[in-house]
Amino acid sequence: MTGSTPSAFSCTYRVLYGDTDAGGVVYNANFLRLFEIARTELMRARVCSYRDIEQQGLIMPVTECFTRFKAPAFYDDLLTLEASIAELTRYTCRFTYRVTRLDPGRLKPTLLVKGYTIHATVTREGKLVRIPESLYARLQPLVTASKKVP
Amino acid sequence: MTGSTPSAFSCTYRVLYGDTDAGGVVYNANFLRLFEIARTELMRARVCSYRDIEQQGLIMPVTECFTRFKAPAFYDDLLTLEASIAELTRYTCRFTYRVTRLDPGRLKPTLLVKGYTIHATVTREGKLVRIPESLYARLQPLVTASKKVP
Amino acid sequence: MTGSTPSAFSCTYRVLYGDTDAGGVVYNANFLRLFEIARTELMRARVCSYRDIEQQGLIMPVTECFTRFKAPAFYDDLLTLEASIAELTRYTCRFTYRVTRLDPGRLKPTLLVKGYTIHATVTREGKLVRIPESLYARLQPLVTASKKVP
Amino acid sequence: MTGSTPSAFSCTYRVLYGDTDAGGVVYNANFLRLFEIARTELMRARVCSYRDIEQQGLIMPVTECFTRFKAPAFYDDLLTLEASIAELTRYTCRFTYRVTRLDPGRLKPTLLVKGYTIHATVTREGKLVRIPESLYARLQPLVTASKKVP
Repeated sequence: MTGSTPSAFSCTYRVLYGDTDAGGVVYNANFLRLFEIARTELMRARVCSYRDIEQQGLIMPVTECFTRFKAPAFYDDLLTLEASIAELTRYTCRFTYRVTRLDPGRLKPTLLVKGYTIHATVTREGKLVRIPESLYARLQPLVTASKKVP
Repeated sequence: MTGSTPSAFSCTYRVLYGDTDAGGVVYNANFLRLFEIARTELMRARVCSYRDIEQQGLIMPVTECFTRFKAPAFYDDLLTLEASIAELTRYTCRFTYRVTRLDPGRLKPTLLVKGYTIHATVTREGKLVRIPESLYARLQPLVTASKKVP
Repeated sequence: MTGSTPSAFSCTYRVLYGDTDAGGVVYNANFLRLFEIARTELMRARVCSYRDIEQQGLIMPVTECFTRFKAPAFYDDLLTLEASIAELTRYTCRFTYRVTRLDPGRLKPTLLVKGYTIHATVTREGKLVRIPESLYARLQPLVTASKKVP
Repeated sequence: MTGSTPSAFSCTYRVLYGDTDAGGVVYNANFLRLFEIARTELMRARVCSYRDIEQQGLIMPVTECFTRFKAPAFYDDLLTLEASIAELTRYTCRFTYRVTRLDPGRLKPTLLVKGYTIHATVTREGKLVRIPESLYARLQPLVTASKKVP
């Protein structure tokens, strides 16, 4: 999942005081917010805005998520958020994420956090439905051969 | 606004790691969450649950809020959240709040934060409406003669 | 992991507006806050407060977390948060969690979310260290034979 | 406080699901996070990064804040965050904020929220101190003749 793969996507995020905790590092729950940012911007850039999906009367809630914390992120860090689509079925979609930071004197970015989220397509009433054909057709080419996270 | 006033209300809150920031103290924005807890529990205990108001098709969004930070709150502190109703008009309601902590060796609780929020009654479509008569009748006896915050 | 197991622990949590999102349900990241509440109160009740661990110069950051979302939680829901210790090594400790809600007309609580977090013991400088003997001795009796989450 | 004033500053922010609440709008507390973003970026662009201030052993906590909510912000909105410095004393600094959105078919941005925060300079031990001369000298030219918020 590097910048050169057409199916990967990355954006940056500046850590706020409000993201950190008394341990001096970004609080664990807040990485799920960062995953949302990366996923939303990947969708907007390559598929459609999540708002468009909602306007078809569908939502795509997280049904499962996994996060591995390798190294802490600190206040004011400029993080790189990467997202890609690792798996797609008729009912679910799995996104994978990497949060990295470019540290002085290092050639490669430091991996801080990686993880995945699985999403299902449900109606506003909560009924599980197949991913609409038009959406599936746009998601499918983005599926990467990336290694699974755990 | 003491425990002896029938119109005042208090509950306790234990500070999470997730409430604090890298300064080692509760992040400023999180006190508005604490205000929500105090206001909601005051309403539930003395008026009706906010969910009941919503079921009448009304919402009571914050239109204005003010907070003064006197002393920091730390991780694992057991805070006392106080709320009371300081002002009521046909369209708006003003709640005041105090967040205190009982410190060892002190007779009186230490005041950490005080503030207020003003709420309007609006329909789901966003139209400003009068507070319904039945709700007004239950809020009115709770209005305290408490001093204004700022 | 039921209320009758001596090693399990549960407490309640009332859902705030600030916990929910525009989908009308508790936002996924906020369940990690609920996990923190359950873990902290389990520790306080059965082991020692996390603040005490910190005062020994140690922190126990999350190194991995997993969450499965089975059903949504709504505004003002009174949730039950359960935590137990599922695994303990000389360096790490795995907590498991269940978030449930007692729904009207149902005999058993509805399972909303389950998950786990793994924690390592590190010094303030970030060095991985063994769990101190005295802490290990108090954690060990709490390890349940609970089934693994995924 | 427009883009043409040298002392004003603006940046954009995309609303996350995690910023909204069950009312379908950005939760009130989260606007204080947006104020932090605007303030931090104003400081970085015109004065110095807040991290630099911290490295001098100083922090600038919020001692007072005020927010007026004029209109709601929704999921996926692209907001403009404006910050400026409205008042500077030897011990405190007052920032003012405006959050706006450019709506289709309107010439001027819609004002959603405005507010202010007051900050004091304190040492890590919590002692109030004068703003260091070098910092004061860089803040002073940014003070605008902007109208007070309330």
